[in-house]
Amino acid sequence: MTDYLTPLDAATLRAHAIPAPWAYGIRDRVRFYELDALGHVNNNAYLKWFENLRVSYLVDHKVSALTHSETQIVLMSQAARYHAPMFLGEDYIVTGRTTSFRANSFRMEYGVFRAGQLTASGEAVMVSLTPDGSAKHPLPKTAKTLFIERDGATREG
Amino acid sequence: MTDYLTPLDAATLRAHAIPAPWAYGIRDRVRFYELDALGHVNNNAYLKWFENLRVSYLVDHKVSALTHSETQIVLMSQAARYHAPMFLGEDYIVTGRTTSFRANSFRMEYGVFRAGQLTASGEAVMVSLTPDGSAKHPLPKTAKTLFIERDGATREG
Amino acid sequence: MTDYLTPLDAATLRAHAIPAPWAYGIRDRVRFYELDALGHVNNNAYLKWFENLRVSYLVDHKVSALTHSETQIVLMSQAARYHAPMFLGEDYIVTGRTTSFRANSFRMEYGVFRAGQLTASGEAVMVSLTPDGSAKHPLPKTAKTLFIERDGATREG
Amino acid sequence: MTDYLTPLDAATLRAHAIPAPWAYGIRDRVRFYELDALGHVNNNAYLKWFENLRVSYLVDHKVSALTHSETQIVLMSQAARYHAPMFLGEDYIVTGRTTSFRANSFRMEYGVFRAGQLTASGEAVMVSLTPDGSAKHPLPKTAKTLFIERDGATREG
Repeated sequence: MTDYLTPLDAATLRAHAIPAPWAYGIRDRVRFYELDALGHVNNNAYLKWFENLRVSYLVDHKVSALTHSETQIVLMSQAARYHAPMFLGEDYIVTGRTTSFRANSFRMEYGVFRAGQLTASGEAVMVSLTPDGSAKHPLPKTAKTLFIERDGATREG
Repeated sequence: MTDYLTPLDAATLRAHAIPAPWAYGIRDRVRFYELDALGHVNNNAYLKWFENLRVSYLVDHKVSALTHSETQIVLMSQAARYHAPMFLGEDYIVTGRTTSFRANSFRMEYGVFRAGQLTASGEAVMVSLTPDGSAKHPLPKTAKTLFIERDGATREG
Repeated sequence: MTDYLTPLDAATLRAHAIPAPWAYGIRDRVRFYELDALGHVNNNAYLKWFENLRVSYLVDHKVSALTHSETQIVLMSQAARYHAPMFLGEDYIVTGRTTSFRANSFRMEYGVFRAGQLTASGEAVMVSLTPDGSAKHPLPKTAKTLFIERDGATREG
Repeated sequence: MTDYLTPLDAATLRAHAIPAPWAYGIRDRVRFYELDALGHVNNNAYLKWFENLRVSYLVDHKVSALTHSETQIVLMSQAARYHAPMFLGEDYIVTGRTTSFRANSFRMEYGVFRAGQLTASGEAVMVSLTPDGSAKHPLPKTAKTLFIERDGATREG
């Protein structure tokens, strides 16, 4: 049985019928507080799942410690598309990958899979700033290498 | 002084330096629980503001009573762009308008204005379904008329 | 009509059938995101209303600027009792008062009133610490005077 | 390694240094959206953890399916006490047990343990109603037997 709340690699995702090129995911479960008055998962809950995934991904890829230490990652935009409603207690895997990057910014895509079915998808564009937010701050080389090698990201600009 | 939590018309929005064609807005204030660990308004809080605005707008425009009665409005997608951080206690006006519609669906845009400055913008695409969600349900004629006359929406398809 | 989101004094509260000794309140309205899958306001939403009230009260009474500046107010405990369910769009006034205090701590009570009916009540105990949280920090004299004069609070210990 | 999000029995809780009589717990991890502007877990997040635990406990003990089917469990009151701050990414186990019950109501206690340390505790009183909320509804006999045998609950009244 695949662990909850533990980053999953490409092989484990494939075993859950999640297709390439997804290579990073976290298994979780729908909670009561994520439902709204219509009885299904509220649209905004999915964006918290993307945020959760993103925080874990950024720390694991050493893009940011999220502690104001060396860099501040700022969200410029995000979007979500909804393909099927979800309900209390359902298991899902949220996935994330970097699709492209520049010197100081990168774009991620997200997916939510329930038993191999894509129930929602998303994207976000982030910029890397100095801790005080006054200037752009280059993405670390190790992160850019991981973006390319693990996620198949494209270098732009 | 302009009321909080009360739908504002085009004239009142203009008096707050919010440009045409915005014709529907609600004044509100940043709350402590909308901040995140970085000390500013969390990115997802803005989507709750858009949801708040949308619920009020749909009821006021008689698109849906949100009570499962005649129609169910389902969000197909949404997006947000962030232009400036916001902080505890700040006053803002969130605006919404329908930009285009079809027989069973419509597209809205949203804005967040702080002292006349646009701090965030958004959009959403919604579809109108029968209460059990099994079939599309035409938008009411009165709503479509308001979309055109108040918001300058375009009829498509 | 009484303003939303604006601190209300004792006279205004009385005009809304809210009894003495309540002397500080804020009018607000139930939002869609505060409902849960049962269709009424979720139990935990009331605690956010108490938090909202508390933040405003602490700033207005100059107990804390909530900015790490001179003092850090830490919640030691809180409780809520639920008297009647609440629903989307309902107007309410949340009230707060300090009932007792010591040199470094104080106890508040909260109420939620809908058309003069008490729908929920709560309480919280807070302690005042130095900004780094390492030691207790005395409550300011002006705050203690307001606790007594405005709220009828009792000095203990 | 103990699973996340999976109900843990008494033996597993003891292995995590969680003392008797706790006999039901769920392991989870602090998420970014549970932090507030002070950088630690917001006080109200703990009450969502208790709610999560409660929903799982009520379904597992067949007290309620939370689906309006046969009974409606209504929270009458809840409380929380905070013993130590918690931070992003920390692992914890939230525990719950029924301490006493009557024909139509019961009282639960909750704990949050981080590496064997109690960081927060709570309690709630619930009443069992008919689905339309118009009358009290007796707790099922199987649930009361579990309250006694698993949790050491006391029958009152």
